[in-house]
Amino acid sequence: MSKILVFGHQNPDTDAIGAAIAFSHLQNQLGKDTEAVALGEPSEETQYALDYFKLAAPRVVASAKDEAAQVMLVDHNEFQQSISDIADVEILSVVDHHRIANFETANPLYYRAEPVGCTSTIVLKMYKENQVAIPKEIAGIMLSAIISDTLLFKSPTCTPEDVAAAKELAELAEVELEAYGLDMLKAGTNLSDKTAAVLLDLDAKSFPMGEANVRIAQINTVDLNEVMDRQAELEQAMAEEMTKNGYDLFVLVVTNILDSDSELLVAGNAIDKVEEAFQTKLTNNRALLKGVVSRKKQVVPQLTAAFN
Amino acid sequence: MSKILVFGHQNPDTDAIGAAIAFSHLQNQLGKDTEAVALGEPSEETQYALDYFKLAAPRVVASAKDEAAQVMLVDHNEFQQSISDIADVEILSVVDHHRIANFETANPLYYRAEPVGCTSTIVLKMYKENQVAIPKEIAGIMLSAIISDTLLFKSPTCTPEDVAAAKELAELAEVELEAYGLDMLKAGTNLSDKTAAVLLDLDAKSFPMGEANVRIAQINTVDLNEVMDRQAELEQAMAEEMTKNGYDLFVLVVTNILDSDSELLVAGNAIDKVEEAFQTKLTNNRALLKGVVSRKKQVVPQLTAAFN
Repeated sequence: MSKILVFGHQNPDTDAIGAAIAFSHLQNQLGKDTEAVALGEPSEETQYALDYFKLAAPRVVASAKDEAAQVMLVDHNEFQQSISDIADVEILSVVDHHRIANFETANPLYYRAEPVGCTSTIVLKMYKENQVAIPKEIAGIMLSAIISDTLLFKSPTCTPEDVAAAKELAELAEVELEAYGLDMLKAGTNLSDKTAAVLLDLDAKSFPMGEANVRIAQINTVDLNEVMDRQAELEQAMAEEMTKNGYDLFVLVVTNILDSDSELLVAGNAIDKVEEAFQTKLTNNRALLKGVVSRKKQVVPQLTAAFN
Repeated sequence: MSKILVFGHQNPDTDAIGAAIAFSHLQNQLGKDTEAVALGEPSEETQYALDYFKLAAPRVVASAKDEAAQVMLVDHNEFQQSISDIADVEILSVVDHHRIANFETANPLYYRAEPVGCTSTIVLKMYKENQVAIPKEIAGIMLSAIISDTLLFKSPTCTPEDVAAAKELAELAEVELEAYGLDMLKAGTNLSDKTAAVLLDLDAKSFPMGEANVRIAQINTVDLNEVMDRQAELEQAMAEEMTKNGYDLFVLVVTNILDSDSELLVAGNAIDKVEEAFQTKLTNNRALLKGVVSRKKQVVPQLTAAFN
């Protein structure tokens, strides 16, 4: 029971897995006994990065309390995005770059959040503050996390700190940033062999908004039509997920990582909230949002405001 | 509307006011336009420290949104301990050393919490990280905050970081730490001229626990009997406060700062929860808790566990 588990959110993206690996390594260098784990299998994008830097994927866990009394969270804080039994273990620390909601502890803890584009940017700062050296492969997965979260610096969530951190990590990881970044992002856009249910679950999070339970999934692509040609199949899968999990609203954000635009596909009763949030009219349950690529900055706050 | 307000919790103690002054000064040096304000008048202890270091007491405010769109919180996060209209303004940052509960934002923010004894210990770290020099009087009020929160290092919340920070700040403030600290703490124990209602409000916070609304007040003294001789008067004032504010349980913690013990005086329906939390029996609504001086570490978690 002594080992401390370190993990990112459900449906892990490259930052959820990369920041867990990097933060666990830092904590171990500082004398803690931690293990980086994950709340799901790596995506193809993340697997590309893990393979490139010869890192093993973290063990997938579904619950914590049978093997650990204490945990550390990275890249998330909202309990509904965390491990199933998060309320039964002690949260020692959180490193994150999201809004704070549906999160509470009984005891004081270490909480480090900054409004930057990627958790790994904050973890890099903590390595420096503690004067711990970053191994090449860990620099590589942290770099991959920043590229992923900022869509190679194109996302409005990207800050100068993220760009500087990525450049510094690219040197440590000994890769050419732009070329590696585009290859990694493209590795995550291989969608054709996936069912609609799998696509909806690649990068999906739930958010309580007002009284509603809102599911927001995001899919990255280099061709919006490749996804939208499967609208009927996606809508059926969205309806099934809503019934199964009690979502009131399901918003699918399909993002073209080359053009930096997104198309929404929406299901549920609160479609008027979506139209209000984005000041648009849905046609055939769809709307194109020019320049929108960030769920965190360009979708969640707008929808939250419409519900409140 | 451009100025950012920086403040600590309601019923401000020396850290709530000191950390606000220090963090506001740091932010201004970093280019922000902030003003340290307070959600109440300084206590006699805090006033002693402000006078000693020739600092003006922060302006007292009751609401934020009419004069500021953005705020920064120090030494608290729980909304019921914050400004009345906290939900109507944007929280840009939090620096704190408490548990996190009843706190949420729509947007990512800067959040820095560490499980140390005093917010000002964290603020000192942030001055150093940003390489900003600390003026003598601001070092003095930060030192005073650490002495206050740790009861001159006797509280179990006190960490080696707090002790090191206080020593460093005492040099900057040019005071003899122990002598100044005891004088300041004693300045806060002048209780005889205060009504029971005033005593109950000196350092009181509300906590949601399970379904219950729990009020926990703390009074520092050098003589427990001086306070407990006024039990009847205190119990009447506690009953009035409970009716007026809908508290289910009122716990008064009277702490002898010289002996590091506390006596509880309890009112309300959930007295069994208090007995369970502290594994004691109340006699005449009272119980002596040897070695208990910290509400945060030795009262709130135990009571929270009893309610959950």
